[in-house]
Amino acid sequence: MSDIKKLINEAIDEALNSSDSNKEVISEAYVTQAVKFNLNTELLSSKTKAEHQKLLEGYSKKLNEISAKLDGCDKSGANLNHSEFRSLKVDEAYNHNAAFLHGLYFENISDLNSQINMNSLSYMKITRDFGTFDAWQEDFVACCLSARNGWAVTFYNPYLKRYINTVIDLHSSNVMIGMIPVIVIDCWEHSYYRDYMTNRKAYVFGMMKELDWNVIEDRIKKSEKLSKIL
Amino acid sequence: MSDIKKLINEAIDEALNSSDSNKEVISEAYVTQAVKFNLNTELLSSKTKAEHQKLLEGYSKKLNEISAKLDGCDKSGANLNHSEFRSLKVDEAYNHNAAFLHGLYFENISDLNSQINMNSLSYMKITRDFGTFDAWQEDFVACCLSARNGWAVTFYNPYLKRYINTVIDLHSSNVMIGMIPVIVIDCWEHSYYRDYMTNRKAYVFGMMKELDWNVIEDRIKKSEKLSKIL
Amino acid sequence: MSDIKKLINEAIDEALNSSDSNKEVISEAYVTQAVKFNLNTELLSSKTKAEHQKLLEGYSKKLNEISAKLDGCDKSGANLNHSEFRSLKVDEAYNHNAAFLHGLYFENISDLNSQINMNSLSYMKITRDFGTFDAWQEDFVACCLSARNGWAVTFYNPYLKRYINTVIDLHSSNVMIGMIPVIVIDCWEHSYYRDYMTNRKAYVFGMMKELDWNVIEDRIKKSEKLSKIL
Amino acid sequence: MSDIKKLINEAIDEALNSSDSNKEVISEAYVTQAVKFNLNTELLSSKTKAEHQKLLEGYSKKLNEISAKLDGCDKSGANLNHSEFRSLKVDEAYNHNAAFLHGLYFENISDLNSQINMNSLSYMKITRDFGTFDAWQEDFVACCLSARNGWAVTFYNPYLKRYINTVIDLHSSNVMIGMIPVIVIDCWEHSYYRDYMTNRKAYVFGMMKELDWNVIEDRIKKSEKLSKIL
Repeated sequence: MSDIKKLINEAIDEALNSSDSNKEVISEAYVTQAVKFNLNTELLSSKTKAEHQKLLEGYSKKLNEISAKLDGCDKSGANLNHSEFRSLKVDEAYNHNAAFLHGLYFENISDLNSQINMNSLSYMKITRDFGTFDAWQEDFVACCLSARNGWAVTFYNPYLKRYINTVIDLHSSNVMIGMIPVIVIDCWEHSYYRDYMTNRKAYVFGMMKELDWNVIEDRIKKSEKLSKIL
Repeated sequence: MSDIKKLINEAIDEALNSSDSNKEVISEAYVTQAVKFNLNTELLSSKTKAEHQKLLEGYSKKLNEISAKLDGCDKSGANLNHSEFRSLKVDEAYNHNAAFLHGLYFENISDLNSQINMNSLSYMKITRDFGTFDAWQEDFVACCLSARNGWAVTFYNPYLKRYINTVIDLHSSNVMIGMIPVIVIDCWEHSYYRDYMTNRKAYVFGMMKELDWNVIEDRIKKSEKLSKIL
Repeated sequence: MSDIKKLINEAIDEALNSSDSNKEVISEAYVTQAVKFNLNTELLSSKTKAEHQKLLEGYSKKLNEISAKLDGCDKSGANLNHSEFRSLKVDEAYNHNAAFLHGLYFENISDLNSQINMNSLSYMKITRDFGTFDAWQEDFVACCLSARNGWAVTFYNPYLKRYINTVIDLHSSNVMIGMIPVIVIDCWEHSYYRDYMTNRKAYVFGMMKELDWNVIEDRIKKSEKLSKIL
Repeated sequence: MSDIKKLINEAIDEALNSSDSNKEVISEAYVTQAVKFNLNTELLSSKTKAEHQKLLEGYSKKLNEISAKLDGCDKSGANLNHSEFRSLKVDEAYNHNAAFLHGLYFENISDLNSQINMNSLSYMKITRDFGTFDAWQEDFVACCLSARNGWAVTFYNPYLKRYINTVIDLHSSNVMIGMIPVIVIDCWEHSYYRDYMTNRKAYVFGMMKELDWNVIEDRIKKSEKLSKIL
């Protein structure tokens, strides 16, 4: 998802030219790159898909801008009520999540031949932790319908040693620490409003039918490896 | 941190007896247990330490109560504007983080012989990602002074493949997804107000001087192993 | 905006029949009613307008549901980490604002003959507090572009004795206390995404051109009367 | 509470000298002034009282700093994901509320001879809207125990034409729009932690016993006048 470093010069140039950024030397700043996605799904209009790609690029750009600004920011003035440093850190978490959640979402949807194999790790772990696959599905859909412009995410939770569904508001509210994301559905209005209007349920059911269980299986395999270390 | 399962009967009893809980059979609920900490530090009064332990127990208890309620909650009524399910999921993330951040915090402070070894992984990784150890310290203190009743946390960020400092408000706002926590300082007023009043800086400097670098080294070793999988 | 009381029986029936509500006698609960709006604007598609009306009705219904539940809720268990009472109060503010901000928004847009009279109180007060009318406009548009699924609102601020522009996130974050709302534009994605996609700027400029300055003048007249008491 | 204008020169100087502020000409910026309070209560230690006064001064200073920065801020770069303008507006609401809620709080507590007259408007309106005075008290205490470092406030709600209790988190979350504040109790840990530790209930009961009903009566009289205009 990153391909860091080789973009650093562009980011420096951009940051130096941007009207409100700080003109200090940039050395420690990190740089991220938006990925291009090819979505096969017919459940979303091509306009929705194209505009969503634009939004993702906006978040990555902002994240790089913030990283560059943080690099030159005066830390001695850090203050909880108001300071440039605080604002940058708050917005860093917001744009970080926006960029990477979008990446995870685009990657795990739009599989026209979606099916979960009952011998897969995904199936076994989900049924272990939710009782049945249907129970996971019901719980996950409930999360999708509960997010206020936000996200539903199934995470591996290393503290509880189980998979757990969560509801994120906007991009960085109600986020559990230390979790490994495995299944991600975008519930911001921009992801469905053009095509489904207020009928979020129809959008969610559509996305659930096209989850890419190969991608998810890879993430769950990773989580299982991690769980032995964590 | 957990020692799960063996407490399940207590939790079931408690949930069944609590006035506003749901009387359904509890099967999938998880259960967590608050850890008892022995803090050697003289930088905090014994009253502050004892009351902090009480708070931690409150969070663990609430997390178990929420888990039990979720198990019996009607998911078909999930709604983003208001529903019991949504409220429980939002508060689950809040109390989850409260419980585990406190655990991580108590574990990594109060080392009276605190010192970082320049040959340690901690030292190498921190200097790699922040330029110098002092630069990390300056940045981390700035995070401590920027949290509005919240937390400063150094996380390993698997997306950016580096360690990064973050500012969490309350327990679950501005949280980056997918991070591995390695250094944690509590910046809620309850952690310092009795002893330092508005002088949060003095409290933070005190805690920094007693960071337990052995605990942190173990966490960083884990993170480095994880980084090869992630 | 309200026409309270006469709907109380319906609300009681609804609350009593709703699956997760409390079956206590409802006596102190308040009841609100969603207003029907006729929007002349061609800047929004009829689908967007119709669906927006539906959303408004959803918020009013939820507010009544919450009010009824609060009436029977156990207050002795109130708890900051998690309690039914807390969740209801948090969601009450959210749905209250959603319902009334939508009302204020629908009321002050869609005037096809929009123009501000330079002899109006609106014009005088705005120029007094922002320097020029253009300066207000620039500042207000900046607020519209800064809200994260939220609202831009010009309020009369009785503490500062002036009009002030504000940025609300979602429905109840970053809200100044004690303000009198006079100009309101919805910046949730649902208000423009179908018609303008990511081009929020075009939507905002459209709405600005059709502000109903007669409605705003009435609100400003009221604010000026209030300012003598406050 | 304000005594605006005469402090403008100090504020300009301060803003111009502050390290991270903008050096533009300040013209439209507003200025506020922290009030000095004499608290008679013995329920709070003199240290708690003195430090609380310091906090209030910090909020007022920050509000002035933000106002000055906004005056010179580039509005054309306003952006919802991240921009200096957005950060300033978000923190403006936060510090505005912090400053004025503290003012309202200090003003309405610490009456050693506190008693509510049953012929007062306060008593009549409270009993009208909550059923009994005890019911208001129970509901208000529940709000105090539900705020997460925040505030309990009784507001006059002009939309619902009644008084209503609310729970504010931090300073600007869950705030109902358009309300007139009449009774305010600070529930941040800094207001009680030194003296009551985790026993917030004891602090709240103490404050309730010393509410200044003369101050509240004046506010309710104002609200009743306002209610005829709103």
